[in-house]
Amino acid sequence: MAKPGVLTPQAEDFPRWYQDVVAKAELADNGPVRGTMVIRPTGYALWERIQREMDDRIKAAGAQNAYFPLFIPQSYLAREAEHVEGFAPELAVVTHAGGKELEEPIVVRPTSETVIGEFMAKWVQSYRDLPLLLNQWANVVRWELRPRVFLRTTEFLWQEGHTAHASREDASAYARRILHEAYQDVIAGVLGIPVVVGCKTVKERFAGAINTMTLESMMRDGKALQMGTSHELGQNFARAFGIEYTSDTGSREHAWTTSWGSTTRMVGALVMAHGDDNGMRVPPNLAPVQVLVMVVKAGDGVAEAAEQLVDDLRAAGVRVALDDRVDTAFGRRAVDAELKGVPVRIEVGPRDLADQKVTLVRRIAGSKTPTELTAVVTAAKAALAEDQDVLYSEALERREKSTVDVATVADAAEAAKTGWARIPWSTLGVEGEAELAKDAVSVRVL
Amino acid sequence: MAKPGVLTPQAEDFPRWYQDVVAKAELADNGPVRGTMVIRPTGYALWERIQREMDDRIKAAGAQNAYFPLFIPQSYLAREAEHVEGFAPELAVVTHAGGKELEEPIVVRPTSETVIGEFMAKWVQSYRDLPLLLNQWANVVRWELRPRVFLRTTEFLWQEGHTAHASREDASAYARRILHEAYQDVIAGVLGIPVVVGCKTVKERFAGAINTMTLESMMRDGKALQMGTSHELGQNFARAFGIEYTSDTGSREHAWTTSWGSTTRMVGALVMAHGDDNGMRVPPNLAPVQVLVMVVKAGDGVAEAAEQLVDDLRAAGVRVALDDRVDTAFGRRAVDAELKGVPVRIEVGPRDLADQKVTLVRRIAGSKTPTELTAVVTAAKAALAEDQDVLYSEALERREKSTVDVATVADAAEAAKTGWARIPWSTLGVEGEAELAKDAVSVRVL
Ligand SMILES: [Zn+2]
Ligand SMILES: [Zn+2]
Repeated sequence: MAKPGVLTPQAEDFPRWYQDVVAKAELADNGPVRGTMVIRPTGYALWERIQREMDDRIKAAGAQNAYFPLFIPQSYLAREAEHVEGFAPELAVVTHAGGKELEEPIVVRPTSETVIGEFMAKWVQSYRDLPLLLNQWANVVRWELRPRVFLRTTEFLWQEGHTAHASREDASAYARRILHEAYQDVIAGVLGIPVVVGCKTVKERFAGAINTMTLESMMRDGKALQMGTSHELGQNFARAFGIEYTSDTGSREHAWTTSWGSTTRMVGALVMAHGDDNGMRVPPNLAPVQVLVMVVKAGDGVAEAAEQLVDDLRAAGVRVALDDRVDTAFGRRAVDAELKGVPVRIEVGPRDLADQKVTLVRRIAGSKTPTELTAVVTAAKAALAEDQDVLYSEALERREKSTVDVATVADAAEAAKTGWARIPWSTLGVEGEAELAKDAVSVRVL
Repeated sequence: MAKPGVLTPQAEDFPRWYQDVVAKAELADNGPVRGTMVIRPTGYALWERIQREMDDRIKAAGAQNAYFPLFIPQSYLAREAEHVEGFAPELAVVTHAGGKELEEPIVVRPTSETVIGEFMAKWVQSYRDLPLLLNQWANVVRWELRPRVFLRTTEFLWQEGHTAHASREDASAYARRILHEAYQDVIAGVLGIPVVVGCKTVKERFAGAINTMTLESMMRDGKALQMGTSHELGQNFARAFGIEYTSDTGSREHAWTTSWGSTTRMVGALVMAHGDDNGMRVPPNLAPVQVLVMVVKAGDGVAEAAEQLVDDLRAAGVRVALDDRVDTAFGRRAVDAELKGVPVRIEVGPRDLADQKVTLVRRIAGSKTPTELTAVVTAAKAALAEDQDVLYSEALERREKSTVDVATVADAAEAAKTGWARIPWSTLGVEGEAELAKDAVSVRVL
């Protein structure tokens, strides 16, 4: 359906293909300041759906949303030396405001960690205040020298969770709960992307964490993408910020904290995990529009039939939209829907309709089936359920094919050129990890 | 119920009462950078509910959400001289990033208007691209010398809508549609705050607008608060940004645009429009928690009965929460619920329960009624519906009482000391407006 040559083929140049999809599916544009992006309605609708699904699960896990300021006094970032070193070249600094130079420069938040730590210390007094489970949806800024839309941008949108607990066990369980019940559930169940879930090596751990857990997914070029992380911070963070509480026996204790985050990078992952040479393929569970009813061209009763279908699909609980722009060539509209990855299209044209038929087009399975008008709502719903699984299975199969079990560090380096390698940590160890790093191969997950 | 002296009484010092409520109801704290705020979970839950209700209506009006960058090149704001003068002292400017000084300073968006204008010009080519209906939820920064939490803060959260149309009529109708179907519907119908809707005088108009429409509400101190604005920008904005399209007859035309915004200020308005000396009174249609089921103290079957009630209320479509923190004094928890303005509380205690009774407490009506356990779900739902109306009617009555019809400019100035004055524009006119300005009285709405 898509005109050949619209997109650079994946096999030819994957990063170029990705850029093409982002542009042609109207997901995003580059912003005027280098490294920033304009998220267009098609891209933002995907993010909104991801956000909603994630937010529901974060709330179900008991966390509450709050909002902390964009601006952080520079002195806050000096507090925890380890972190500042990590961020310094990434920071954007406000030096002028209110028409004059500021006495103390202000940093645009690269994360709200320091401010949240400050306020947690204020809010936590007694064991009764624990656990304190906070989450924030916000924009953050980290200066990027080699930006890539959605994947690595100077400004991005994310959620960051920060929790404080009375015991190590409780903190540890909560970090895992978010990892599985929020992140894994959304990424695997909604985005249809298989994940390998596990711990990072000491080398790859978040600064200050006693344990960093990660979800890693394979993109269609065989590369890994980190989909989210959840950290156990032990009492390190609480010590740095003075998050102390009086226990039920009256003693003063440091809290045990966690932090966890996921970002607009997931939109990029969605493109790269499922897309093909015709564009995106959006999993039905995520799709803002699951079924697009398209009027092929004007004709007797066509518009009415299409509208009736939209009503019927909506009543059946389907997220549906109508494309009745008959003054735009049908082929062009079909290519556009293909590029944007709408899971199911129902094409309503005068000729088919004379036989009480419409055409059901499945983006994921790649099929095109004449279907009785009376049967199409049921058929569409079945296709949505089926194709969610198809997408996941395909991605899982691809990953399994591209992952080899290896026994030596040299074999691991070789395998990493085209996919993933699975190697026992007892074989690899810290020295093997250092060895692989020379070939720009990283140990993603234990 | 609330301990006397917890809040400064409204009659004594209204601004102080407001500050007390914001602090004691745990709505927000001051951020570390002057003028910024930390929106705490209780306050943010209110904002999230407002946002959801507003977003649903904005989408129903056909607009799509998008996201534009936080950072704007300084040169963008020089483009439209009229606006820059308005903003210059309000701007926060980033001069350093990536570890060095920037060649061109970057402004933290005070609005996304200029960037959106730039991209609209790119996206609008043909009449087929119109109307283009965009909305954005984001944080913006305007340096404030006299900040007040929620009402006037250096950083605030808002939505800004920007639309482009093929005709003046279409633009005009859309600006009105948002005004009524989104803003008025949410403010009056959900927040329960009466609004006077109308046009601003030429003097009070938004720079560049050919018509600014506003919604004005009266707070409990008799003062007006602007709840939202919707602007018709004619072709001025399109000319400044080059938003042109080819019409269906092939001619090149400037688009007609609108813009409209509403902010976290609405949370402050909610406090000031309905609150009393015991704290907030949250309208049931908005309330994140409509009914709080409280375990008074532990006892035979009390916890089970409370949990059953929560399930029953949830099944009846009520937003419900459970307070079973029996290790915290009941009086303290009741005062807290009162401060936070939870519309309905159901107190479950061992003594009442022995008689198969609970106590229904209505925050808005101020009543406390022993109620049969079997009847309390129905009673709670009835109370929620009734008290939404009570709150609106009370606010309307107060406004009517505090608004006087006057015939002279002098009388208007006098009336404005304690409330509002209604005066024919034919009597007032531009000169009368200038006269009133000397007494710091503004003409809010025509
Ligand atoms: Zn830390
Ligand atoms: Zn303008």
